[in-house]
Amino acid sequence: GEAETGPTAGAWHLNKLLNPRRDGVVLPILHLNGYKISAPTVFGRMSNYELMTLFSGYGYEPRIVDATKEGVDPHDEMANALEWANDLIAEIRASSDTTAPRMPMIVMRTLKGWTGPKEVEGNKIEGNCLAHQTVLSEAKSDPEQLKILNQWLKSYKFNELFNETTGFGDFVKDILPDKLEKRLGMSPHARGGADVYQPLKLPRVEDYAEDAEIPGTIGSSSMRRAGAYLAEVFRLNADSKNFRFMSPDETYSNKLDEIFQATSRSWQWPIMDWDKDLSHDGRVMEMLSEHNMQGLMQGYVLTGRHAMFASYEAFLQVVGSMVDQYAKFLTQSRNVEWRGTIPSLNYILTSSGWRQDHNGFSHQNPGFIDDILRRQSNFSDVYFPSDGNVTLVCLEHMLSSVRQINALVAGKTLEPRWLSTDLARQQVDAGLMVWDFASDESPDVVMAACGDYPTKETMAAIDIVKTHCPNAKIRCVNVSSLTTVGFGTLRNVADQKEFDKIFTDDKPVIFNFHGYPQTIKSILFNYAVDST
Amino acid sequence: GEAETGPTAGAWHLNKLLNPRRDGVVLPILHLNGYKISAPTVFGRMSNYELMTLFSGYGYEPRIVDATKEGVDPHDEMANALEWANDLIAEIRASSDTTAPRMPMIVMRTLKGWTGPKEVEGNKIEGNCLAHQTVLSEAKSDPEQLKILNQWLKSYKFNELFNETTGFGDFVKDILPDKLEKRLGMSPHARGGADVYQPLKLPRVEDYAEDAEIPGTIGSSSMRRAGAYLAEVFRLNADSKNFRFMSPDETYSNKLDEIFQATSRSWQWPIMDWDKDLSHDGRVMEMLSEHNMQGLMQGYVLTGRHAMFASYEAFLQVVGSMVDQYAKFLTQSRNVEWRGTIPSLNYILTSSGWRQDHNGFSHQNPGFIDDILRRQSNFSDVYFPSDGNVTLVCLEHMLSSVRQINALVAGKTLEPRWLSTDLARQQVDAGLMVWDFASDESPDVVMAACGDYPTKETMAAIDIVKTHCPNAKIRCVNVSSLTTVGFGTLRNVADQKEFDKIFTDDKPVIFNFHGYPQTIKSILFNYAVDST
Repeated sequence: GEAETGPTAGAWHLNKLLNPRRDGVVLPILHLNGYKISAPTVFGRMSNYELMTLFSGYGYEPRIVDATKEGVDPHDEMANALEWANDLIAEIRASSDTTAPRMPMIVMRTLKGWTGPKEVEGNKIEGNCLAHQTVLSEAKSDPEQLKILNQWLKSYKFNELFNETTGFGDFVKDILPDKLEKRLGMSPHARGGADVYQPLKLPRVEDYAEDAEIPGTIGSSSMRRAGAYLAEVFRLNADSKNFRFMSPDETYSNKLDEIFQATSRSWQWPIMDWDKDLSHDGRVMEMLSEHNMQGLMQGYVLTGRHAMFASYEAFLQVVGSMVDQYAKFLTQSRNVEWRGTIPSLNYILTSSGWRQDHNGFSHQNPGFIDDILRRQSNFSDVYFPSDGNVTLVCLEHMLSSVRQINALVAGKTLEPRWLSTDLARQQVDAGLMVWDFASDESPDVVMAACGDYPTKETMAAIDIVKTHCPNAKIRCVNVSSLTTVGFGTLRNVADQKEFDKIFTDDKPVIFNFHGYPQTIKSILFNYAVDST
Repeated sequence: GEAETGPTAGAWHLNKLLNPRRDGVVLPILHLNGYKISAPTVFGRMSNYELMTLFSGYGYEPRIVDATKEGVDPHDEMANALEWANDLIAEIRASSDTTAPRMPMIVMRTLKGWTGPKEVEGNKIEGNCLAHQTVLSEAKSDPEQLKILNQWLKSYKFNELFNETTGFGDFVKDILPDKLEKRLGMSPHARGGADVYQPLKLPRVEDYAEDAEIPGTIGSSSMRRAGAYLAEVFRLNADSKNFRFMSPDETYSNKLDEIFQATSRSWQWPIMDWDKDLSHDGRVMEMLSEHNMQGLMQGYVLTGRHAMFASYEAFLQVVGSMVDQYAKFLTQSRNVEWRGTIPSLNYILTSSGWRQDHNGFSHQNPGFIDDILRRQSNFSDVYFPSDGNVTLVCLEHMLSSVRQINALVAGKTLEPRWLSTDLARQQVDAGLMVWDFASDESPDVVMAACGDYPTKETMAAIDIVKTHCPNAKIRCVNVSSLTTVGFGTLRNVADQKEFDKIFTDDKPVIFNFHGYPQTIKSILFNYAVDST
């Protein structure tokens, strides 16, 4: 049933990005027992011809193992298929040209409820959806059902496999690998922690910052700064090979292409002479599928390695549901002792709604930050750097953090610089700051902003007010991060006292916010209503 | 590029549900110009063999029209392909057996930037990603570029197609259909309104309600009530054929299967003797793809017909982003004069998080209501019926409403009945109500609930308090709907006066809410902080 989902249907195309020689190999086995709870599945009812052509088209070498056919030993068939797949994988990995590799995949057909009762009270059970839930639910009161249940359970010859005094027999014991490290659950890549996790080497932020001595001077875009910094992250960690960049919307389009000075895009299908920044070994994963990118990132980070995911802001919401499910995993994994450190999931939300003049309404939606601010009470930091220098400091925090979900919202257009690196560090540590260079003593009103374009607007608004009312006393406040429970970051949430100190006890506040009003209302509620 | 998305990859399987004889036919044309902004597309780099097998596997009869091949007239090729497709569709529609119909689809390969400049300054333009954005961007200052631009634009022989005095020539005029109604934009199905929209005939709610004279008596589940009611909706509108049910998670599993007394599930692939509730003509669309269901529903509702979409609550968030995009369409369409009435998008969120004991954490997430409450300020009503009777009244409202997005959150387990149909109507009209039968005069505390399981908990809590503190004075308040801007519905939002009257000016309120705390905080903010 789950193979019917769109994200799964799209995921088969990931063979176009994964390099069988470098990236390791997954052998996909599509197990078709034909039914869901009450109906056939789409793949279960497809003919063998349809299955073979579909997966050939996706670029695989498919093979069907049909355990429902009379006269074949399904266990032999499956063993042969696995051996074939293993040989084929080895052959491809050893080949000198792995362009468009036709990797093996197996379609395994079995009967639903295989080896269970074939029929109960005239209804087909084995090989039908009725095997899905409780079969023989009346066995407690119906002697006929009890008899069938008895025969069914005895058919597994449990007494041959287990003995009350000696435990499991050789048949079971022989399956367990002798060497502990060969057991699936003992793979260090499944656990995180010191065996596989190593912190990224990060460049000095100062080396990539721009001069902000005169606040308001136009600088390069936040994304240009980020691109230069991330290129250096790739260089510094080239030997460790533990950093990837996920990019559903094209790295060029998001102005992060300086990354291609240090690496390229992974691509296993044919490459033409005129193609740029494509190679079998690129560490940037580009495909117009947010679902694929999210899936890749989750898998990669879970093995202890680092990733950054950049997207048009409006489109990251496509994977809001996947991020929620990952957050549930984080919740549980923090309570599991043997699970070691893993890096955070890191998102850059750029090409933001407020500068989508050319693409328009379809590309406008600051919804993803809701998704992560609203639900994961102690996982998520959302950064709103006011300029390129603050962006760099935020990236440093994100790439150093572990077991979190971080998002950074910043534009790709040329914008004013406001803060030096020193001030940027102060602000990011605190989460919010009074901008002294634009503030008066004893203010009549507080003008606050959260987000780069809102900051620019607020600074312009202050300028207009000052022009027309030179005596107006204004305090300028800038907010650079939010968590579910307040202003600031998980490390340092502003408490009521700090909140009151910055926003004053009694002055009106004009708050210019990047996202939906409801997002900030839900956070302000804690300060405004329930401050105890 | 967009063909790389998961939802698109999954959508090709919709041929398993669409009946070519009854449902009309879409001829898919996959146009491959090979490139995105800066890189090849996945489908563009797939070989013809891969494309042909892939779409054969999906169950289509694919045909490639390759306009990049030397020596063929691409216009002839395309005309022939369209004629072939048209004939094949007619043949399938006329056939006596349409099981697993191999409907035509066309893959059209062209050069990106076809007919534009082949090369500029040594860079390949036509047939490369460089044709994506502004070609010859220096034409204003560079005479060489200006010359190429001039040649390029002249190559279209615009003067043969348009004349300053006589306007467009016959070549253009002949393309327009003589009959106005044959023009694509004149299809009534593209406009909604009286030509295609007719209100559903709805059953009397009273005929499906259960006796609630003694509040707290256990009744059948809200979903059982909904199933019986929706079955009758199918019966009453059988002739109009204007109602569909979308069900990614199986109608049986959500306890809505009484619907199958009136219709069945649509299924065009082989049907076995033992299959139940499957037929070529079923009006229930079941596939484990929320994206497919959402896409089908949008298309269907836009033609003026009605739909209901039921899902496990936790999984509807999968299409949160699609619902947002639809809401943007609603925003615009309300301002377009010629767009007629269309029904609302209607969702049932059941198998809710709080009763997912057996599936566990993976199936828990009340996030979808955030998605629609937070963003669409004047579109969305979210209903939280306290029992099966209230559920029926809500369904009546939802199916009668137009141009909205409605969600109903209710469980599938056996639960207490609280309100008669009369009281249910009162409550749904008001959005919230003091439950007199469980309240005291001059209360010390208000105990409020929103949601069916929260209501049960609150009623139990009142019972416990009353047992231990018989003199405690409690007011019981029940909230049955929320909108972004307040308690109630878009028709009737509770104002501050009503809010204060119900919740009192000064008594503590214990609010038991179905969703995330932040959701209710953002709504309460308006009453608690900014009540002016």
